[in-house]
Amino acid sequence: MHRVASESVPRFALGELAAQLGAELIGDPMQVVTRIGPLDNAMPDTICFVSNARYLPQLSESKAGCVIVSAAHREIAEQRGAALIAADPYLCFAKLTQLWVARARGVPNAFVHPSAVVHAEAEIGRDVSIGPLAVIEQAAVIGDGAVIGAQCFVGAGASVGAKTRLSPQVVLGARCHIGARGLIHSGAVIGADGFGFAPNEGRWEKIEQLGGVRIGDDVEIGANTCIDRGALGDTVIEDGVKLDNLVQIAHNVHIGAHTAMAGTAAVSGSTHIGAHCTLAGGAGVVGHVTLADHVHLGARSVATHSISKPGLYTGLFPIDDNASWEKNAATLRQLHRLRDRIRALEKNKETKPS
Amino acid sequence: MHRVASESVPRFALGELAAQLGAELIGDPMQVVTRIGPLDNAMPDTICFVSNARYLPQLSESKAGCVIVSAAHREIAEQRGAALIAADPYLCFAKLTQLWVARARGVPNAFVHPSAVVHAEAEIGRDVSIGPLAVIEQAAVIGDGAVIGAQCFVGAGASVGAKTRLSPQVVLGARCHIGARGLIHSGAVIGADGFGFAPNEGRWEKIEQLGGVRIGDDVEIGANTCIDRGALGDTVIEDGVKLDNLVQIAHNVHIGAHTAMAGTAAVSGSTHIGAHCTLAGGAGVVGHVTLADHVHLGARSVATHSISKPGLYTGLFPIDDNASWEKNAATLRQLHRLRDRIRALEKNKETKPS
Amino acid sequence: MHRVASESVPRFALGELAAQLGAELIGDPMQVVTRIGPLDNAMPDTICFVSNARYLPQLSESKAGCVIVSAAHREIAEQRGAALIAADPYLCFAKLTQLWVARARGVPNAFVHPSAVVHAEAEIGRDVSIGPLAVIEQAAVIGDGAVIGAQCFVGAGASVGAKTRLSPQVVLGARCHIGARGLIHSGAVIGADGFGFAPNEGRWEKIEQLGGVRIGDDVEIGANTCIDRGALGDTVIEDGVKLDNLVQIAHNVHIGAHTAMAGTAAVSGSTHIGAHCTLAGGAGVVGHVTLADHVHLGARSVATHSISKPGLYTGLFPIDDNASWEKNAATLRQLHRLRDRIRALEKNKETKPS
Repeated sequence: MHRVASESVPRFALGELAAQLGAELIGDPMQVVTRIGPLDNAMPDTICFVSNARYLPQLSESKAGCVIVSAAHREIAEQRGAALIAADPYLCFAKLTQLWVARARGVPNAFVHPSAVVHAEAEIGRDVSIGPLAVIEQAAVIGDGAVIGAQCFVGAGASVGAKTRLSPQVVLGARCHIGARGLIHSGAVIGADGFGFAPNEGRWEKIEQLGGVRIGDDVEIGANTCIDRGALGDTVIEDGVKLDNLVQIAHNVHIGAHTAMAGTAAVSGSTHIGAHCTLAGGAGVVGHVTLADHVHLGARSVATHSISKPGLYTGLFPIDDNASWEKNAATLRQLHRLRDRIRALEKNKETKPS
Repeated sequence: MHRVASESVPRFALGELAAQLGAELIGDPMQVVTRIGPLDNAMPDTICFVSNARYLPQLSESKAGCVIVSAAHREIAEQRGAALIAADPYLCFAKLTQLWVARARGVPNAFVHPSAVVHAEAEIGRDVSIGPLAVIEQAAVIGDGAVIGAQCFVGAGASVGAKTRLSPQVVLGARCHIGARGLIHSGAVIGADGFGFAPNEGRWEKIEQLGGVRIGDDVEIGANTCIDRGALGDTVIEDGVKLDNLVQIAHNVHIGAHTAMAGTAAVSGSTHIGAHCTLAGGAGVVGHVTLADHVHLGARSVATHSISKPGLYTGLFPIDDNASWEKNAATLRQLHRLRDRIRALEKNKETKPS
Repeated sequence: MHRVASESVPRFALGELAAQLGAELIGDPMQVVTRIGPLDNAMPDTICFVSNARYLPQLSESKAGCVIVSAAHREIAEQRGAALIAADPYLCFAKLTQLWVARARGVPNAFVHPSAVVHAEAEIGRDVSIGPLAVIEQAAVIGDGAVIGAQCFVGAGASVGAKTRLSPQVVLGARCHIGARGLIHSGAVIGADGFGFAPNEGRWEKIEQLGGVRIGDDVEIGANTCIDRGALGDTVIEDGVKLDNLVQIAHNVHIGAHTAMAGTAAVSGSTHIGAHCTLAGGAGVVGHVTLADHVHLGARSVATHSISKPGLYTGLFPIDDNASWEKNAATLRQLHRLRDRIRALEKNKETKPS
């Protein structure tokens, strides 16, 4: 398990934080914070951040021991106490959480739990931690410093890169590969068969899925997310991709670097998604199409064709009170005829002698 | 495992049922039923219920040994045999199923399976059952009478309330808490990291998720449902909430008491949902909004803004034969221009000398 | 685990393939292929297929050792080298992948891993393989030649048909049944409770789910898919059904033979879906309705009522650039009034003296 049981409460002096975060400190470098929290219930032991101007009113009233703000808000922050001035307070906050967890968690014990079932021909790197009741199959390769959570399954010939962490109950199928510094959450299934069948006189004939899954470095994959193995080649997830929970990635999909998908997004087979794209919650892409780099899909919006131009695309039925929706939805089913009626009215107007 | 292997077939005398369910019995209190079933294939050993008047024709012809009906249908029921008269037959049926299962299942064996990996510093209550190959980490607390299914994972410092049951293969992350009398189905993942990243020159910088999950009493959570831990504070699920399968609850969400969500519903981060709300299958709510108490969302409908007024809200594209849909969908993409053309026609009419 | 660690690279002589696939061979029957692959990166050791005329240009230039084509493309294929002529190249390819995997995988070792927890009263057939850390409960029945993956759970009284394979970490609940030659992918949960509650003064009263799940022969079920047990009777999946990943099948649903559903499709309770239907990705059906045989639902389309006529049905908001969508969506909320305005214009035209 990557969360060590006896997490300690971290303590940081502000001077130390300023140095590690590359921020300018206003205040006493020896002042200590022991908690990161939101502005509204902050105490003198708490460090907060403000990245959005609409929280400035709360800032003045907060009891926080220290706040992270941009240079633009230096004066407001200064009036109330200690502050870290950062070029990008939100990014500074992100890095602060990383320092926090690193100190709270400590170095994971490099330890193979005796209840884990590790094949004699698996290749286990240095400083690897393998949790209770995990299964590591033949010829699997676990990189240096990797953490395999309790009850995980790592299939034959699969590999986990250095410092990658698998939370409990992850399934990594045979001959599937994850790069370095990844984080895979519980219930994720990497390498189930792609959904491929040929019709055969009213029945479905299985197309065995002969490919694998290749996942780059610095990838995070959410809980219960599924990434299927390719039919002939591999399903590919490039470096820095972030997938939320319950996301479906079908076989032969290719996802470009640093693309992110929120919960319940879904990508159908053989689709190629560019780099730096985002899919909002529940968004989707049909099979066999291509999205360019920097394409963004709104919530629940489905790309039904290739998109070559960067930008934000949306297709979501607007919500309304049910009575209004019912009337509008009923009319929508006659929309094409309404257009014809408008056309007729226009024609009538044009041809009518005035 | 919460389903005991050797379930016996329950036997109930009608008099006993009437007493336990608070219903009025018409018929012989010594008559026995051994099965709950639907009206259409009922036999003399079967007890049925009718809560909807449209099943009354079937009622007269049913061979059921006993039927549960409301006072309004007393006479029809009386003509055919034994009956339980209940103020709310559907509710009476629900309670009947509970009596049934309690008798069939019996008291679960309080037993820690020797293959379970229970940390020496975990705190296990009285009459706790822990299934084979479960993992209970350091400082976890399992309440009295709780049932931890086979192959479950309970993280460090997590807690499970009294009489709560975890089906096999549930993951309860470190420092996440479930109240009493809950039921969590297989594959549910409680406490994976929320999906939080700060953009950093085209890459995503992880925001470590420092909060937990707090779940109240009498909560049921469906199979493969995900509830993420909060970023700074906790994700909160209040008492009596019922979540179906494959539901996604993002970080920092707050769900009010007795709200229910059907399968594949999804709630984005930091959203606050009131009490007594319902989300139909696949409904969703975007992030950072608030739904008042008693708001109901229709199937696949997405609340894209806060809703302060109770009621039913819908946003679903009506299904149609594909040819009609294609024409209407194409026209929909010109809808705004159609409105302009109507406006032009109206203007023309107004200004034209008649 | 159904994927044996030491998969060998299969070798097939073309003459052997022609015989086993019932295809006509053009070329040397002793020529060997060792890889199935796409046309574009094929090598002389590779066998490919072409089922779509638009790949013919690639065909001529491919270095593939052998290609599977239909009689219509015999001449083009003949000009470039060895070929298998098949009535249906795609189906021939599907069968080829099956031969391939059968040879690569070999016969799974019939072996119960010593770490598996198998109840003394479970009934284990001949040539059964049970992976590490699997749990088989009391009175469960595992058919001849079945493969139970690592860390699977098979509940009390459940049964797995002959030659059915469960991938690692499948949950098959108590008294649920799968037929022969099935394939269940990791994370699938079969037999969680259906979502049934009776309202009781603002709280939800649980309706215990007393039924089971009955799954026919030759069924494939995707990763993290959920099939709930019935309330009183059983949820039924007939022979030859194929479900992709993250599919939700609610209680009491009946799915007819050879119906297929792509990823994230969802079917609500008590709905009856005919045989030979298809649901595209994310499609859905509300509860208590019936779809006839041969009904096909488009991507994300929700059947909100029964459909008695075979055919393709769609209901999906077309995606557009966000600015256009915003204008059209706003107008959509006034659509009913637009219709009234058209009607008024028409009326005005009719009554106006020309």
